[in-house]
Amino acid sequence: MNYGIVVKVLGMILLIEALLMSPALFISQAHGGEAVLPFMSTLGVMVILGLAMISVKKTNDHIRARDGIVIVALGWVMISIFGSLPLYLAGSVTHYVDAFFEIVSGFTTTGASVIADVESLDKGILFWRSMTHWIGGMGILVFTLALLPALGVGSLQIFKAESPGPVAGKMVPRMKDTARVLYTTYITMTLLQVFFLTLGGVSLLESFVITFGTMGTGGFGPKNDSLASYSAYVQIVTSVFMVLAGINFSLYFLFFRKKYKEFLEDRELRLYLFFVGASIVLILGNLLWTSDVAIFVAFRESFFQVASIITTTGFSTVNYEVWPSFSKLLLFFLMFVGGSAGSTAGGMKVIRILIVLKLIRREVSKIFHPRAMIPIKVGKKIVPNEVIARVNSFTAVHLVIFIFGVLVVSLEGGDMISSISSVAATINNIGPGFGDVGPSMTYAHYSNFTKMFLSLIMLLGRLEHFTIIALLVPKAWTKES
Amino acid sequence: MNYGIVVKVLGMILLIEALLMSPALFISQAHGGEAVLPFMSTLGVMVILGLAMISVKKTNDHIRARDGIVIVALGWVMISIFGSLPLYLAGSVTHYVDAFFEIVSGFTTTGASVIADVESLDKGILFWRSMTHWIGGMGILVFTLALLPALGVGSLQIFKAESPGPVAGKMVPRMKDTARVLYTTYITMTLLQVFFLTLGGVSLLESFVITFGTMGTGGFGPKNDSLASYSAYVQIVTSVFMVLAGINFSLYFLFFRKKYKEFLEDRELRLYLFFVGASIVLILGNLLWTSDVAIFVAFRESFFQVASIITTTGFSTVNYEVWPSFSKLLLFFLMFVGGSAGSTAGGMKVIRILIVLKLIRREVSKIFHPRAMIPIKVGKKIVPNEVIARVNSFTAVHLVIFIFGVLVVSLEGGDMISSISSVAATINNIGPGFGDVGPSMTYAHYSNFTKMFLSLIMLLGRLEHFTIIALLVPKAWTKES
Repeated sequence: MNYGIVVKVLGMILLIEALLMSPALFISQAHGGEAVLPFMSTLGVMVILGLAMISVKKTNDHIRARDGIVIVALGWVMISIFGSLPLYLAGSVTHYVDAFFEIVSGFTTTGASVIADVESLDKGILFWRSMTHWIGGMGILVFTLALLPALGVGSLQIFKAESPGPVAGKMVPRMKDTARVLYTTYITMTLLQVFFLTLGGVSLLESFVITFGTMGTGGFGPKNDSLASYSAYVQIVTSVFMVLAGINFSLYFLFFRKKYKEFLEDRELRLYLFFVGASIVLILGNLLWTSDVAIFVAFRESFFQVASIITTTGFSTVNYEVWPSFSKLLLFFLMFVGGSAGSTAGGMKVIRILIVLKLIRREVSKIFHPRAMIPIKVGKKIVPNEVIARVNSFTAVHLVIFIFGVLVVSLEGGDMISSISSVAATINNIGPGFGDVGPSMTYAHYSNFTKMFLSLIMLLGRLEHFTIIALLVPKAWTKES
Repeated sequence: MNYGIVVKVLGMILLIEALLMSPALFISQAHGGEAVLPFMSTLGVMVILGLAMISVKKTNDHIRARDGIVIVALGWVMISIFGSLPLYLAGSVTHYVDAFFEIVSGFTTTGASVIADVESLDKGILFWRSMTHWIGGMGILVFTLALLPALGVGSLQIFKAESPGPVAGKMVPRMKDTARVLYTTYITMTLLQVFFLTLGGVSLLESFVITFGTMGTGGFGPKNDSLASYSAYVQIVTSVFMVLAGINFSLYFLFFRKKYKEFLEDRELRLYLFFVGASIVLILGNLLWTSDVAIFVAFRESFFQVASIITTTGFSTVNYEVWPSFSKLLLFFLMFVGGSAGSTAGGMKVIRILIVLKLIRREVSKIFHPRAMIPIKVGKKIVPNEVIARVNSFTAVHLVIFIFGVLVVSLEGGDMISSISSVAATINNIGPGFGDVGPSMTYAHYSNFTKMFLSLIMLLGRLEHFTIIALLVPKAWTKES
């Protein structure tokens, strides 16, 4: 491993995190200033350490694949360790483990919280907590790389490891340009949502908090009841932006270039919108059938909750725990679907579901044509066998880790659905689940061990497992080749 | 499609079913004779119809692949329709749908029941109900084929469709001989278990009933509390035979030929025994940790329940609903593992889990050697790519149907775990689940629609999905080619 360059890049990431954290300091100052000292001391440590790290000597500039993996995994742990310091120092939580859990949950865009009373938080802390969603959503490491000169195959490795989905889309030849296009889209949409929310009378600070949670598909909200007490307008605006945040960001590039036909012909987009639409209709029907709620209210609730769960955001406007089993189970399975590849959403991603469904169809055809060679196509493109193998292995490893996770969490002694849904809600980066971790509950009641374990589960989910698993292979740590 | 030969083979199957049903008539006669008339009228109809069917004219003797599929699917439905008549005619259930559900559950070796009070059943009915497990376990169609001359590729198709697992093992060159060897083993082990049970003071009739449920990995028992009221000796004998019934029957061929080394080196056997052993230890630990049960009792309960669930039998000696969440969830996940390929067990089969785990390991290796071609090996054999594709598609289709099934059953309005576990327990052919379908409950409370739907789910699980799905493809029904 090229230790020099690894330390240097990590130092750079730390400095960028400090830069991104600084607005929270000023917000805290403007609203009472309870957390000014915590932010200042954290920033001080980060800047000093970051500067020390970037001045480490390196033998060469080349990042190899294994260096990339180590950078991604350590990078995410590092930003979480430092990012959680202000929460701990400001006394927002009592134990450091709680702060770490909260910020891992933030950066991984999960939104699982240990803080029941967020309204009493210092505003700077509230802002920073939600901003971690926004930073984690598109990937701070890619952001860092976009500022650095190209550093070899390892940077592609970082891009691949951090960008969710089976194929890291390269729209424009150079990775750096791809990152720039994605960030432009991301920032534009963020500002648009903030604009629409302030139009609905939401304060600028709360607009940013909600938007960070939406665009990062995170789900930390500014109020204790998530988005339940906001107006129908605010809820609908947020629903629409959640759906938009679950679309592959590369597609917006087509959209802005007015290639509407290509945009609408994207197979993943179509299946994603089908899942969203069908789920809304099914839950709407289920709610109308089993209660006497008004149709518009039922539609708004169904739309909001489907958008929130499939995009793995985790906001809520209603306690869906009281919904009938069918609606709850549909939401549960949507947790695993997740949004599109190349979006900020978690879960397994729609493109993988699409490929898996096509594999099933192929196997049925093969019953009648056992010797036929039938390629798997998405749109007009043939999916290479290596991608198919990766999709299958990802699905398998996702389920294996899910099962292992459920068994570990079940030692806490909660009921079956609580154990199952707490892992489903963290591995897929949603946040709230059912039972003990339902929408009106927090993760505070878990032991420190379980909180650390679920933090690992969130990181595994966000980085799609293999990057973290690779760290366990001794080869990742050898100096040579 | 070759309609003539399809009808002829189905007629043959019907006659063999009648032959297998006839002992139940005599047992009923010997124990009060309540069901003599129902059995006689059913047998009459079966024999007349069967004789009419085998005298249908056929153009040629050749069974094509698609004929084989139609024979398997229709064959299973047909034997269930006729097999359930005695239960309905004898008044063991009130609705015909209940009888159909019960017998589909029997033939598919599921053991999900709608009858709470089995002790009051006519003894002939009790015997026949359990015998369907024994018949369904090894496949009545394969049995039929073993008696028929070789009929072309379609008979291999039938063998493949009915024998669980990704590769239908052919130990001996001719399929007919393979079937004979398997049946000899099956009958030998059946007689052995009956011998050991009678040695423990169980009546001959009950010994057969328990043995049918064990060797077929079915789970219908002779008493209302399953095996809870039997002695520790009987419970342990049954545990051992359940574990034996979950082993690939081809392996016993090696064992009887004294090829012990090859027997013990089988990778699927090792992983299966590891799953069994590890699960027993984990549940034992969990029970000792959370209660003050005696270690021997805890071991016996844990051994019995693990063996019962992983082999998808579904007997119980204890209400495992009161066990801690960890143990319950471990049992829940074992439901999906199932026994070995080529055994009578349901579930996904250990060999598929083994292949999937190896695929994950290969993908991890590929992070460091992206261009390496690493073959998947089980033991010394390389697994062909088509088998890997089938394993992946099977896993996917199993989960898709499971999810679809859970959503359908959830419309019944039960809680989430009841909906989830009722489908897990039927698609994997176990029987009892958790909640409304727990070990001390039945499936009687479900609507007729749900009972028919779960019957379909049981058939899908037993025939490993693709045979039934293939029926939906119009091509299965065309006359030519």
